[in-house]
Amino acid sequence: MNETIQNILSRRSTRAYKPEQITAEDLHLVLEAGQYAPSAANQQSWHIVAVQNKDMLKKLSETFRTVYLKSGIQRFEEAAKADDFNPFYNAPTYIMVFADDKAIAPTHDGSLAIGNMLLAAEALGLGGCWLHAVNFVFKTPVGEALKGELGIPEGYSPVGAVAIGYKAAETATAAPRREGTVTVIK
Amino acid sequence: MNETIQNILSRRSTRAYKPEQITAEDLHLVLEAGQYAPSAANQQSWHIVAVQNKDMLKKLSETFRTVYLKSGIQRFEEAAKADDFNPFYNAPTYIMVFADDKAIAPTHDGSLAIGNMLLAAEALGLGGCWLHAVNFVFKTPVGEALKGELGIPEGYSPVGAVAIGYKAAETATAAPRREGTVTVIK
Repeated sequence: MNETIQNILSRRSTRAYKPEQITAEDLHLVLEAGQYAPSAANQQSWHIVAVQNKDMLKKLSETFRTVYLKSGIQRFEEAAKADDFNPFYNAPTYIMVFADDKAIAPTHDGSLAIGNMLLAAEALGLGGCWLHAVNFVFKTPVGEALKGELGIPEGYSPVGAVAIGYKAAETATAAPRREGTVTVIK
Repeated sequence: MNETIQNILSRRSTRAYKPEQITAEDLHLVLEAGQYAPSAANQQSWHIVAVQNKDMLKKLSETFRTVYLKSGIQRFEEAAKADDFNPFYNAPTYIMVFADDKAIAPTHDGSLAIGNMLLAAEALGLGGCWLHAVNFVFKTPVGEALKGELGIPEGYSPVGAVAIGYKAAETATAAPRREGTVTVIK
């Protein structure tokens, strides 16, 4: 089967990573893949922040913990109470995607960048996981306060994030697809 | 270079198609690729409608024309006045993605399905183009009225669409990427 199709069909979310960092070349390719996503009117409305620095990963993790603990959402609060809480599954690379509020389709643009990065990671033999919580965290004052330090331009909002690293275990086959989600009119 | 990465970096929007229909096998693979997109909490919140039927394509095109002409948006109105108006660039296959309003992240889920379908098309030697106008058209009463006929479930909203077919011309190389859209914190 075509390699790209094979990658698309076999990609799974990875939630356990080896501690080793990915290579600089692989990071470059993953980020490039994100930047080559299609975007509405070619606005490329994303700003992508890749974090590999351990201190910053820790700071982000603690920020998530703080926000989760005050979230009023039970599953967030419970997760955040765990000693080993880590919102990126301890992946060594955490990539956040923000997009320009003024763009035509910032959520679409950002999501397409996320999809490309996940597929690129899979193609390079890495594991990845789309993580949505960044949307929640960076819309709170605690998250907002971190945006400057992360190089996120003014007027950009979170779209999502991906964790990337070497898979700690073989991924299982994809979950079955829901029935009845496609209509073909021939 | 890795084939998937190559596909991601070389894919362009195709806006001129041959009239020949794509094969049933290719349609199947493209739709399967869409369904294997990641989705928040594996909700697979999309409903995908692929139209190849010429009467329905014409009906859709005329619906778009009607909506564009009353849109109050100059570039839409001008486009719709052209004799050869066709909102899918005359592609023989037009695939719309809707998603469940009640899902965690319907726009993200739907966009990820769109991205997978565009990449699958490219990998199969087909051209594709992400088209955003479905968002506008299906939020009007004229568009809403078509949803039942297209098999779109109640409570689903448009996310986007893709045109797919054989490329009528070689695609150019990708437009340059914007500078300064990536921050790496090592």
